[in-house]
Amino acid sequence: MQLEAVVRRLELEELYTDYVHCLDADELEHWPDFFTEDCFYRVTSAENYEAGMPLGLIHATSRNMLKDRVSALREANIYEPQRYRHLVSSIKIREEHRDWLDLVANFMVVRTMQEGDMTLFAAGRYLDQLRRQNGTWKFAVKNVVLDSRQIDTLLAIPI
Amino acid sequence: MQLEAVVRRLELEELYTDYVHCLDADELEHWPDFFTEDCFYRVTSAENYEAGMPLGLIHATSRNMLKDRVSALREANIYEPQRYRHLVSSIKIREEHRDWLDLVANFMVVRTMQEGDMTLFAAGRYLDQLRRQNGTWKFAVKNVVLDSRQIDTLLAIPI
Amino acid sequence: MQLEAVVRRLELEELYTDYVHCLDADELEHWPDFFTEDCFYRVTSAENYEAGMPLGLIHATSRNMLKDRVSALREANIYEPQRYRHLVSSIKIREEHRDWLDLVANFMVVRTMQEGDMTLFAAGRYLDQLRRQNGTWKFAVKNVVLDSRQIDTLLAIPI
Repeated sequence: MQLEAVVRRLELEELYTDYVHCLDADELEHWPDFFTEDCFYRVTSAENYEAGMPLGLIHATSRNMLKDRVSALREANIYEPQRYRHLVSSIKIREEHRDWLDLVANFMVVRTMQEGDMTLFAAGRYLDQLRRQNGTWKFAVKNVVLDSRQIDTLLAIPI
Repeated sequence: MQLEAVVRRLELEELYTDYVHCLDADELEHWPDFFTEDCFYRVTSAENYEAGMPLGLIHATSRNMLKDRVSALREANIYEPQRYRHLVSSIKIREEHRDWLDLVANFMVVRTMQEGDMTLFAAGRYLDQLRRQNGTWKFAVKNVVLDSRQIDTLLAIPI
Repeated sequence: MQLEAVVRRLELEELYTDYVHCLDADELEHWPDFFTEDCFYRVTSAENYEAGMPLGLIHATSRNMLKDRVSALREANIYEPQRYRHLVSSIKIREEHRDWLDLVANFMVVRTMQEGDMTLFAAGRYLDQLRRQNGTWKFAVKNVVLDSRQIDTLLAIPI
């Protein structure tokens, strides 16, 4: 492994780090910036993913659709004072090309309700394709594949 | 990113790694060594942190106060045979200067009781300031910001 | 820290990453490949580990025994449609030699049942010895030390 490969690895770590801090800090307005304009984003279950089912809990085929979703979430304005905390582990490059990468990473999300109850909210894999644009890695494809078939939430939030 | 930046990143990973192994191995006597002499250490809730409330569940303004706390914990000698397991993820440098750094990192702590019950004990962020002293990074400020308002513990243990 | 040390650190991260993806993807047939031929593998409790008890929930003294275990798990064919998700954190080199390393790492496993119930299945430490063979790190010793004394499973699966 050369310095170049080392740097790439740390860049990827950094991307996932920034991504989860954006979500956990509820800075959802910045969330679409992690994606390419023509991105594909989906939250789905492992079962549906493996069966090749195209849809999911959330499904978007452009960055603009992600922005719309954030607006919808803000307008819905449901009083949900919970906090989310992501843990990401085991980021792995599965395929590597000059300008794009295929990755898998494990994640877990803990939800804390205002009264203090903590629950495992979600666990699963990110199955992502990254594209390099102007020196930055962006998600061209992001499949959030939940181990569970269902997710306990009023509104489908980004994960 | 140059080799220097890469090395720094791994040094920081190492610091958090050593920190959590110290706590999980119940080697609390070494815990104050991770801090500067004039450190600020606090365990608080996200709610209080965001409201600018100065105090917390634990609050110390020097390494000696941390040592006192360890002594108090040992003397209290409450029979609590549980084990704690920390997971740290998404360490991010927020501000970087020659001799100090501002960091955020996500953490989760699992508590296992002697009978085998496992619970999510804590989840939240470390909001830390590191200072470089004699070639080593020390915590000058460590804010342990819990997502929850309360924490289920008899004695406020270090996190 | 030189580039060589940096590369080693990333190699180790990669090994644990590959290891957990192998398990989480239920590709158990590849699991023994992570071990040396004369490996020692054990799943045990912290209590038994600290008391020096030699046995455990799973105990194997060669790669062939690991293969046998996988065959047994496949033949048992108990319908257990759950999914496991590993998170690994805080990998630490405890001792370092030319061709072998002593490591500790924290882990957590989330189990998701088909109906969607998620539970903390296991938390603990890996206490491992790695040996370098033909340019690859293999587990010569792997102690999976669970914080809990018991584990809720019908069949002792690899962790």
